[in-house]
Amino acid sequence: MIEYGKYKEGIGAMDTEQRTTIRYTFPFGKGLRLPPLDKSVLGGKGKQLAEMAAIGLPVPPGFIITTEACLYYLHHDKQLPKELTDEVQTAIKLLEGQMQAGFGNKDNPLLVSVRSGAAISMPGMMDTVLNLGLNDETVIGFAKVMNNEHLAYDCYRRFLSMYSSIVHGLPREEFSQALEAAKAIAGVHEDVELDVTALKGLCHTYQELFKKHVGHSFPQNTLEQLFGAIKAVFSSWDSERCRLYRHIHHIPNDMGTAVTVEAMVFGNRNDQSATGVGFTRDPATGERMFYGEFLTNAQGEDVVAGIRTPHPINLYQKKITESSLTSLEELMPDVYQELKDTVNKLEQHYRDMQDIEFTIDDGKLYMLQTRTGKRTGLAASRMAIEMLEEGLIDEKTVLRRVSPEQIEHMLAPVFHHRDKQRATAMMVAKGLNAGPGAASGCLALTSAKAIAYQSEGTACILVRKETNPDDFPGMVAAAGILTARGGATSHAAVVARGMGKPCVVGCSALHIDLQQGTVTCGDYTLKEGDPISIDGSTGEVFFCSLTTSPSEILQVLLTKEVEPENSRLYHYYSTVMALADKYRKLKVRTNADTPHDSSAARAFGAEGIGLCRTEHMFMDPERLLDVRRMLFSTHEEERNAATQKLLPHQKEDFKRIFRSMHGLPVTIRLLDPPLHEFLPHDDHEIRELATRLSIPEKKMMDIAHSLKEHNPMLGYRGCRLGVLNPALTLMQARAIFEAAAEVMLEGGKIYLEVMVPLVSLEQELLHQKILIDRVAADIAKDYGLCILYSVGTMIELPRAALLADRIAEQAEFFSFGTNDLTQTTFGMSRDDSAHFLPSYLQGVPNPSDSQEKLQLIHDDPFQTLDCDGVGQLIQLAIERGRKVRPNVKCGICGEHGGDPSSIAFCHKVGIDYVSCSPYRIPVARLAAARAALE
Amino acid sequence: MIEYGKYKEGIGAMDTEQRTTIRYTFPFGKGLRLPPLDKSVLGGKGKQLAEMAAIGLPVPPGFIITTEACLYYLHHDKQLPKELTDEVQTAIKLLEGQMQAGFGNKDNPLLVSVRSGAAISMPGMMDTVLNLGLNDETVIGFAKVMNNEHLAYDCYRRFLSMYSSIVHGLPREEFSQALEAAKAIAGVHEDVELDVTALKGLCHTYQELFKKHVGHSFPQNTLEQLFGAIKAVFSSWDSERCRLYRHIHHIPNDMGTAVTVEAMVFGNRNDQSATGVGFTRDPATGERMFYGEFLTNAQGEDVVAGIRTPHPINLYQKKITESSLTSLEELMPDVYQELKDTVNKLEQHYRDMQDIEFTIDDGKLYMLQTRTGKRTGLAASRMAIEMLEEGLIDEKTVLRRVSPEQIEHMLAPVFHHRDKQRATAMMVAKGLNAGPGAASGCLALTSAKAIAYQSEGTACILVRKETNPDDFPGMVAAAGILTARGGATSHAAVVARGMGKPCVVGCSALHIDLQQGTVTCGDYTLKEGDPISIDGSTGEVFFCSLTTSPSEILQVLLTKEVEPENSRLYHYYSTVMALADKYRKLKVRTNADTPHDSSAARAFGAEGIGLCRTEHMFMDPERLLDVRRMLFSTHEEERNAATQKLLPHQKEDFKRIFRSMHGLPVTIRLLDPPLHEFLPHDDHEIRELATRLSIPEKKMMDIAHSLKEHNPMLGYRGCRLGVLNPALTLMQARAIFEAAAEVMLEGGKIYLEVMVPLVSLEQELLHQKILIDRVAADIAKDYGLCILYSVGTMIELPRAALLADRIAEQAEFFSFGTNDLTQTTFGMSRDDSAHFLPSYLQGVPNPSDSQEKLQLIHDDPFQTLDCDGVGQLIQLAIERGRKVRPNVKCGICGEHGGDPSSIAFCHKVGIDYVSCSPYRIPVARLAAARAALE
Repeated sequence: MIEYGKYKEGIGAMDTEQRTTIRYTFPFGKGLRLPPLDKSVLGGKGKQLAEMAAIGLPVPPGFIITTEACLYYLHHDKQLPKELTDEVQTAIKLLEGQMQAGFGNKDNPLLVSVRSGAAISMPGMMDTVLNLGLNDETVIGFAKVMNNEHLAYDCYRRFLSMYSSIVHGLPREEFSQALEAAKAIAGVHEDVELDVTALKGLCHTYQELFKKHVGHSFPQNTLEQLFGAIKAVFSSWDSERCRLYRHIHHIPNDMGTAVTVEAMVFGNRNDQSATGVGFTRDPATGERMFYGEFLTNAQGEDVVAGIRTPHPINLYQKKITESSLTSLEELMPDVYQELKDTVNKLEQHYRDMQDIEFTIDDGKLYMLQTRTGKRTGLAASRMAIEMLEEGLIDEKTVLRRVSPEQIEHMLAPVFHHRDKQRATAMMVAKGLNAGPGAASGCLALTSAKAIAYQSEGTACILVRKETNPDDFPGMVAAAGILTARGGATSHAAVVARGMGKPCVVGCSALHIDLQQGTVTCGDYTLKEGDPISIDGSTGEVFFCSLTTSPSEILQVLLTKEVEPENSRLYHYYSTVMALADKYRKLKVRTNADTPHDSSAARAFGAEGIGLCRTEHMFMDPERLLDVRRMLFSTHEEERNAATQKLLPHQKEDFKRIFRSMHGLPVTIRLLDPPLHEFLPHDDHEIRELATRLSIPEKKMMDIAHSLKEHNPMLGYRGCRLGVLNPALTLMQARAIFEAAAEVMLEGGKIYLEVMVPLVSLEQELLHQKILIDRVAADIAKDYGLCILYSVGTMIELPRAALLADRIAEQAEFFSFGTNDLTQTTFGMSRDDSAHFLPSYLQGVPNPSDSQEKLQLIHDDPFQTLDCDGVGQLIQLAIERGRKVRPNVKCGICGEHGGDPSSIAFCHKVGIDYVSCSPYRIPVARLAAARAALE
Repeated sequence: MIEYGKYKEGIGAMDTEQRTTIRYTFPFGKGLRLPPLDKSVLGGKGKQLAEMAAIGLPVPPGFIITTEACLYYLHHDKQLPKELTDEVQTAIKLLEGQMQAGFGNKDNPLLVSVRSGAAISMPGMMDTVLNLGLNDETVIGFAKVMNNEHLAYDCYRRFLSMYSSIVHGLPREEFSQALEAAKAIAGVHEDVELDVTALKGLCHTYQELFKKHVGHSFPQNTLEQLFGAIKAVFSSWDSERCRLYRHIHHIPNDMGTAVTVEAMVFGNRNDQSATGVGFTRDPATGERMFYGEFLTNAQGEDVVAGIRTPHPINLYQKKITESSLTSLEELMPDVYQELKDTVNKLEQHYRDMQDIEFTIDDGKLYMLQTRTGKRTGLAASRMAIEMLEEGLIDEKTVLRRVSPEQIEHMLAPVFHHRDKQRATAMMVAKGLNAGPGAASGCLALTSAKAIAYQSEGTACILVRKETNPDDFPGMVAAAGILTARGGATSHAAVVARGMGKPCVVGCSALHIDLQQGTVTCGDYTLKEGDPISIDGSTGEVFFCSLTTSPSEILQVLLTKEVEPENSRLYHYYSTVMALADKYRKLKVRTNADTPHDSSAARAFGAEGIGLCRTEHMFMDPERLLDVRRMLFSTHEEERNAATQKLLPHQKEDFKRIFRSMHGLPVTIRLLDPPLHEFLPHDDHEIRELATRLSIPEKKMMDIAHSLKEHNPMLGYRGCRLGVLNPALTLMQARAIFEAAAEVMLEGGKIYLEVMVPLVSLEQELLHQKILIDRVAADIAKDYGLCILYSVGTMIELPRAALLADRIAEQAEFFSFGTNDLTQTTFGMSRDDSAHFLPSYLQGVPNPSDSQEKLQLIHDDPFQTLDCDGVGQLIQLAIERGRKVRPNVKCGICGEHGGDPSSIAFCHKVGIDYVSCSPYRIPVARLAAARAALE
């Protein structure tokens, strides 16, 4: 038990009380009891083999070596636990009895497969060894017992090459080359056509190869073979490839893998033998049909490796794939029927689509694997909805079956698969997949150029080293955005995601030459106007044109090109969404700065605006001069005149937003960014502005210089602007309340929330609230109306969270600005974290063992809320705020508002709503529902 | 009682249970009981007048109107509480009885003075009205009763002008001009020489002036006069001047002032009358002598205003001031003796030096005020020590009597007072007094120039727009530092304070023209090399030379020019320090980066180094090229060679520091600042570096560009550098441990603490600790030594504080980096806060009443720890850290380590030590002791 406790922590498999001594192996097979342990100990594959055997399905017998043995191995310098040797030998004995054969027995040898089986399946990632138990002597006995020399040597050559590459890491190519050479000499095309002599020769060649690389002969002791294979599977858990897979799929690194050792059955015995894989429903479309492929006279690896073209499993599939190959349904109708029945039984048992492997050994069916199948977003929705209709699952299970990411994929535009394959050669680089979707167009290197293309009606991709607020119009104009710098939460990524625009960032292989107007990558150079394509779901960049089409769901919701009743995709989407809305507790609002965004958000189901930033309104090129006049003019009349000129524009924007959100709450944030963002950036432009504002050039330079900050993120911004420039707050408040009043007069329903940004002192909020309340009272009087509104604040600085009780005395709502809160809590700027955060996420060499990697952080805290640190502040702020003002409304409006795991956290801590970009709303609705079910 | 509770909060005067109805007035005088209330209600002046009367000292009778009436007035739109009218009239009646005169009675009028009296005295800040009760009729009666027409009209003209200016805000100059005109016509020099006719004329002129400005005649109703004066005193609490005073002296704004109304006695009755002020000991030197000044035939205002030269109070003072004027001791020996006895009695009673006011009315002494006297640092120490010796106070009281600021003043170099007065005209500007002390020298505009002057042996003042790390050598070379930008914690201020160097920052009136090599302020322009002087204790800037001398204490401790036994100043200093050390619980360490700083710190009593930064070692111009080679070279051999070259230098620095700290703990922080700080700043220098490092120019530019950060404070710095560049950590650890080993071999005693900066993730610390431990083990083996060391971390990011429990699993000590922690908790960069923080501190127009100011924050959080926010994180981190590791040592090493009120907080929350710059150590020792006494 001591060993157990040492590395068992965090697995949480079972009550440790139940087991008084460690046991690492568990047999399975017909008539054997199911081990009382879960997948985290037995692995998915082992657990389900044992289950299949227990419910009477045909499974070759075998035994499982648990994940605990793997963890022991990994934590003890690659030593297996001592007890394991005995336990394995006992298990082998049992197997020998079941199979009536002896392991290593030269007359009647038992052959086994050794496979990995992690708790969470990692298809194609980990290693398998087949036909283990053969050596130079047993192969002869095996041939005799089977009465099939061809089978024996086919198995032996397969075993020799698999064992060599997997257990000893020898280069696979050399084995393939030897096989090809043998086929060339024999003058045959298919492996299976090699005769016994050729196979024997191949076995000899393979053994020579082994000796050359390893330095000694191929191990003849079958137990040595077995432990070698077990160790190889354990070690593969820590391979670079598996770590990467786990990183991408958010699977913990400390789970370990189990091993299953199973008696071999032989799909390569004869023409009445076969091996295949299948899905109980179509994983691409979700259609309810048995979908699969098989090969006769083959072993499992042949199907996966694609050496021979596999056959369709049934007539239906044969028809839709227009295949001319014989189906299993035609070839072995009885076995097919048994397989189909088995498959149905499995789906009924697991109540989910299964991904199966089977082998037919001389006409007898064996199941080698069943697991929940991976699927596309479309398939996930369709299957869940249809299983609900079939009564197989309930509504809550539907919501658990469709992941938020799958909804996201359903919404993204796509490149045609075939088109993309054709363009492989032009795939020149890969960046970070920052905004899902595919976009193609001509290269634009500046915002102006992108706008010019748009006005010509030409789609373009805006390619920039990095983007800044000035590029916003160009980003709006472009079909997709590609940057050479920045991470997943860089400006480009955030803005693009907000617009649902395909975006690839941090593509450092690109060299952008603005002088020459070119983008170079390796040997390829594009000029402005040349075609370029990006796949924001994968990060791929193509130096050519590819065709795209918007998701059908968007065609229903936004462009209205498709009628809802004509879209199956929309049907599944809307059914899942309706269920999500039924179960979720969190409200979902949107971050929207424009009437256009607001309308899109409503179509996606937004229940209000959680964050309407006003700075984008200021950045409009047509207004910028007046904005600058208002902010920087040294003449009071000019400042006032500019303010008066701006007011109607801001008001008009607000009116359009209010109209589009009729009846729903709208949260408007007062101006937030540092003033210098409104200044022209180079000397030439500053000079020009000085002339237009009739300010001496030197004075203008001084203003520009004095606004320059060392750390603008921590500088003169947010409510600090409004506290020192009350006229700015008054102007914004006036625009907001006049807009509200006028829309009310039109009959609009308004629930207005005015939000003060970057508060760290309760007095700041008090100051701003007095101004806002005064304007509200004046306007209510002028228009003779009662305007429903509340004043609240962003909680985006640690101090505000810590003093939320004091702030709640003024604030009627809290909106957690998790972007800034993450920055300040970590002391890490979003923009500058690119220097180190990617390495932190990928892991750096572990200083205690440079072979290993030390991952410093598991998720990008700008994408997934850091529950431990930032989350702690949020929780604390909610508690303290509600102590003073029990009904203080709490929302979050950072990037995290659209991130599923962050949404789960928000649900848990009692947030009232999340706010995210319009295109993330469906994701958020679903994530909120799933959180409510947890 | 309801009214009471409403504005009484925070005053905490007395148990509210004791009083069932509000009473706003309390009489005092011979035979009257002392009101059972404290200074916060009665005001300092009123309370002490009542006390003097109660112990039988001669005090004219009167009554007090409490601070509660003032607060009511200020919170009720300047309306007095209703009850007050009756109460005041009752009190007046009592006074009439005591004085045998009638208020407003034209035959025998009662005259009173109306004075302010806040709980904490604010000398010279608030308003007083004398001789109230006179009008055109009572003045006649008063003349008759007094049998002194001159006295009556002298009192009347004084009353008319005081009342006009104080109650109605009329311009004082017009009254002075009228007085001057009257004297000119009469051909006399002194006010007192004006005859009755002239005085009558003046009264008429004054009344005309009043009517002209106010629009109606001067009020003849004496009660109207009285309430006008009371309101004026109450209002003066909120005057700009008083708010500023309170801000500077950290007095809360919500205390309000009391009013004392007291029967007049007349120092201007005749030549047997006089008025004067005095101190029971010399407030400048602390010498035990009665010190004071007086004028015969005068009222109090005459002494304060300096219209006539006051006389010395006694022969002793006459002698030391070489005065030829008659002393009171000579003029009225009996009265003097009575005064001296009274003064002694007061000191015995209050057990502290008293600041008194008295009046002699026709040979009879009256005490008009006694309060604890303000004093210089020297005087405070001397008096406290001597009173201890006299048995007047105990040791703890000594520590309460000397403030940390007073110790600071004792250590600062000074301008000669007379020299400074002479230079008034050349005092061209005032900035923030950032580093106490006085410095004079020639103007240097660049670091290089300052170094050049130093090498010539010429003292200079470095004047920069702002400073950065490059300026460090110049700052070391200069005698004082003056900047046009930055606040009290700007780079210049922090560095200067660390060196105990006089410094004035944020002097925005200066215009620096580097091209011309000039500094301009108003009409004055200095060229480089011209003399300039700064007083870092006051913020004054002089465009001329002034002589300075270092504090005598420093001459004893550091330069050893003075023997301890020959310095009285040192005697007082060291006695106070010894007492402080006896009572304090907190250890005091120093922030020191150089052997020189370490030695100074030990002389000041440091008990170790709490923060030794290593970046200054890197910035040495002679090493910078190798540092750059190590950090930026693209050739590995060159990097290694540079590292090897640097190692002995770093090691040598550490050895010298270890030697100077023999037997005391030394905390060394690994490299912290962003790498770009080590890069050359302009293109030319980058090109040069590229050549020297044999890196293509473009590549070098790229490196420089890639290291540029938007928010360097939140960027790639601190342990992030060491995690991604383990070689850097290894090199630093090697230098540290080799130095330790070698000093140990010399016989040195080492307690080493290695500190990892800017940790936000526990894995960062783990990573760095593994490297450090490995180097430590290697070196211990190589040298055959056991090196005592621990590894800990800065807690300087909110996340580190929140997760202190996890971090404590690795960290053996926490050092709170309160500078960074303040920046991130507030979301406010130290450098950039200059845009708004000064306005926050001074207050902005209150949006509900623009006449008032709304102060957003009371103390600069970079100077005084923000206990509410930042302090909360510190407290929480200590609790959580100690839960996991009960003996985790906790210190603070930000700027706050030398700030008395921050030190008090540190004591309260259980910090083990504070660390501050060497010159702040005495301040910290005393502050720590005072905290322990609280």
